[in-house]
Amino acid sequence: MQKVIKIGLLGAGTVGSGVVKVLEMNRQQITERVGAELMIKKVLVRDCSKVRPFLANYQVTDKIEDILNDDEIEIVVELMGGLNPAKDYMLRAMEAGKNVVTANKDVVAQFGKEMFAKAEEKDVDFLFEASVGGGIPIITPLKQCLTANQVTEIMGIVNGTTNYMLTKMTECGSDYESVLKEAQEKGYAEANPSADVDGLDAARKAAILASLAFNTRVELKDVSVEGITKITPDDIEYAKNLGYVIKLLAVGKETQENGVDVRVHPVFLPKEHPLAAVNGVFNAIFVKGNAIGDAMFYGQGAGSLPTASAVVADVIEVSRDILHDNFGRVRCTCYEEKPICPLEKTKSSYYVRLLVDDKPGVLGYVATAFGNAGVSLESVIQTHRNIVDHAEIVAISHRVEHAQIEAALAALKALPVVDEIRSVIRVEQERG
Amino acid sequence: MQKVIKIGLLGAGTVGSGVVKVLEMNRQQITERVGAELMIKKVLVRDCSKVRPFLANYQVTDKIEDILNDDEIEIVVELMGGLNPAKDYMLRAMEAGKNVVTANKDVVAQFGKEMFAKAEEKDVDFLFEASVGGGIPIITPLKQCLTANQVTEIMGIVNGTTNYMLTKMTECGSDYESVLKEAQEKGYAEANPSADVDGLDAARKAAILASLAFNTRVELKDVSVEGITKITPDDIEYAKNLGYVIKLLAVGKETQENGVDVRVHPVFLPKEHPLAAVNGVFNAIFVKGNAIGDAMFYGQGAGSLPTASAVVADVIEVSRDILHDNFGRVRCTCYEEKPICPLEKTKSSYYVRLLVDDKPGVLGYVATAFGNAGVSLESVIQTHRNIVDHAEIVAISHRVEHAQIEAALAALKALPVVDEIRSVIRVEQERG
Ligand SMILES: NC(=O)c1ccc[n+]([C@@H]2O[C@H](COP(=O)([O-])OP(=O)(O)OC[C@H]3O[C@@H](n4cnc5c(N)ncnc54)[C@H](OP(=O)(O)O)[C@@H]3O)[C@@H](O)[C@H]2O)c1
Ligand SMILES: NC(=O)c1ccc[n+]([C@@H]2O[C@H](COP(=O)([O-])OP(=O)(O)OC[C@H]3O[C@@H](n4cnc5c(N)ncnc54)[C@H](OP(=O)(O)O)[C@@H]3O)[C@@H](O)[C@H]2O)c1
Repeated sequence: MQKVIKIGLLGAGTVGSGVVKVLEMNRQQITERVGAELMIKKVLVRDCSKVRPFLANYQVTDKIEDILNDDEIEIVVELMGGLNPAKDYMLRAMEAGKNVVTANKDVVAQFGKEMFAKAEEKDVDFLFEASVGGGIPIITPLKQCLTANQVTEIMGIVNGTTNYMLTKMTECGSDYESVLKEAQEKGYAEANPSADVDGLDAARKAAILASLAFNTRVELKDVSVEGITKITPDDIEYAKNLGYVIKLLAVGKETQENGVDVRVHPVFLPKEHPLAAVNGVFNAIFVKGNAIGDAMFYGQGAGSLPTASAVVADVIEVSRDILHDNFGRVRCTCYEEKPICPLEKTKSSYYVRLLVDDKPGVLGYVATAFGNAGVSLESVIQTHRNIVDHAEIVAISHRVEHAQIEAALAALKALPVVDEIRSVIRVEQERG
Repeated sequence: MQKVIKIGLLGAGTVGSGVVKVLEMNRQQITERVGAELMIKKVLVRDCSKVRPFLANYQVTDKIEDILNDDEIEIVVELMGGLNPAKDYMLRAMEAGKNVVTANKDVVAQFGKEMFAKAEEKDVDFLFEASVGGGIPIITPLKQCLTANQVTEIMGIVNGTTNYMLTKMTECGSDYESVLKEAQEKGYAEANPSADVDGLDAARKAAILASLAFNTRVELKDVSVEGITKITPDDIEYAKNLGYVIKLLAVGKETQENGVDVRVHPVFLPKEHPLAAVNGVFNAIFVKGNAIGDAMFYGQGAGSLPTASAVVADVIEVSRDILHDNFGRVRCTCYEEKPICPLEKTKSSYYVRLLVDDKPGVLGYVATAFGNAGVSLESVIQTHRNIVDHAEIVAISHRVEHAQIEAALAALKALPVVDEIRSVIRVEQERG
């Protein structure tokens, strides 16, 4: 008789309901591929009294013990979100000898170490493909398909909300406030959009990606973060004219001298870069390895079914391990302890836009201030776009340390002819 | 003491030398990640007398028995290419209880079934990630990360030579002959370019991709194939003006009525499609699943180190299996027997370009001929580009069966006002 593998589902919201649906609509194929039937035995929710037609055929509970004490349940799928009680429930599930699959970036980014240690101790699987990039396979590729490489760089568009907003700003020339409102109306942005627009969501994913890419533990606190709230239509326009697009990127780089550099911030990206064509709510993760060269993984970074696709793929992995009685093939990959590159030491090119007095010689003062701080410029232009009585200077620097650009900005601020530093945005790749 | 896993390498050409290099340059990381040392014990070549400095520290042989009879060798990596003796050597290696990793699309596309059967019989691994898309992880994603999906469509740019040529034709307006010459000079195309430009190489990869995507055995002979030799600068130009780019695609679709439709041919692809931005020698595979939606995998489809990246990833997978004494987690995935959709029944939109007499009423005759064959048109334009005394008509049809377009073409050919059917190219996606 065919084995039935029983699952306890924690949470039945956007992703949880997607998991129920995927297991139903693809039941036959999945059973065939796994060689066993996957069955959701119990579902944990907060509020049992809510009407949920899609759970009509399932046993619903609001007591975690119903799942943790059920010896038939071999896989716990955590889709509640938030740090607690999600973390506690997952640890207790592993303690009870159950395998855990989660989409919870918060827990993985902050307490990954503890989770992996528990999985190893209890010889169970702990998988989290859906925590970064929604449906896009990126965790498994990093743990398996790219293992022959030393990854030198990873750059991701990992937040659909902000990518949608920046795409709209680029396509329609709209300003930040109005695209935010539109994104909220379409359900792409929350009423309180801070986690997305301030970059925190992307920072959690950056920490997870960098940990896997560089085999060292990178935690949320190690990521320097800047959101998209200060991006203006003027910046978008300048970017376009200079051959760039503005994207919010999660960036991880391994430097020879200063360790691992992990950050989230808007960047000017050359419009020929594969990530530049990733628009709307789509996500993509770009990886550079010393054997593979450039590679990119593209798809839907959120949504009920796409995210469930990744969750169920993990459940299938665990099921194969159950059938082969073989767990933890790929353990925590953070076997090194690399230093984190301090922000001042990170290197980039920079786009700097200044409001200046409209008089002769200003360009000279500005260029000198950059030069004195050791920042050499790739290009500098002076314009009168949308301005009366003043001028704007737009400079793009060569690659410099962050400390140097800070010094240059301080010197510029002190110049009487400089009225305002309007924007400072990193340029993620110098152009050929 | 750490285990040493010993490898027999068959072939030390482009990819084989890359494997040697990757194992050397990333030795420390790979050892750490696997938990064992990987060692190439013997290398088979045809001509032992050739000077190969990169093999100075390895034992080189021209006798396959030296490897097959060596009980210490647990993994045979086949990188000779061609059907024979590669197939025979791999079967004998498995017969001797050795795991096999290969990049050989010829053998997998034509004799996959036999290979999988032998692997199952002898309980060894048979992995072939590098056989499609070079370094790009696509086989493992199809076998693992996307298993929760029913894949409905797969489309790939899987031949770097032709993508380089079409990209050049698009960017520079050059003609087929001159870009072929340039590609040959740069080493992107062979002296005899037929396997690439006639689509045979892509067809092998299409067969492999479709087999995995639709869980049914698709063989080379099941793929209908058309190359890029007839693409002219005029077609490229029309495509551009209509908002498309021309790409050579490997296409696999599962149809409700007629089974699995697998083909290789040039297509008009809307320029917003993610594959449209894949240029030069890069490859990408686009997958549609009923849970994940759209996903794409992008990277270098060939070359020494990128291809070795995929080969060594497979070797690492096998090594993990050796350490866990657990083989064949994912067996042959072709557990169904789906019919192959006959070419006449495949459905597409079509771009048709005709040379016609330059007189009133011609457009009407042409439109009527299409209509009588049941082909409705999305657009039709008449122009005088680059022509004296004649006109051209460019029509784009709605989705029709191939048999219908054939009927329309026959009727058009019979029209006295139609002087020549200049091009017929599928349009891969109707535009919103
Ligand atoms: N949404 C996406 O597209 C997406 C994409 C990638 C990753 N993720 C991650 O997936 C996880 C779930 O996200 P979601 O969007 O599905 O969340 P959601 O729609 O808010 O659903 C959360 C579910 O968990 C239940 N729940 C929450 N706290 C609980 C508690 N203390 N005890 C019992 N049940 C509790 C809720 O029960 P009630 O229904 O009774 O309130 C609800 O069913 C999060 O970690 C998120 O970051 C989501
Ligand atoms: N090149 C790529 O970028 C690429 C990408 C993806 C997949 N692949 C696949 O990888 C495989 C290898 O391609 P490649 O480009 O590395 O080929 P290659 O450069 O022609 O190298 C072939 C090697 O195999 C050896 N060999 C051939 N026949 C042999 C025989 N009968 N006995 C012993 N040794 C033999 C040759 O020995 P000698 O050196 O003594 O002649 C040579 O070392 C092919 O299946 C190809 O389709 C290649």
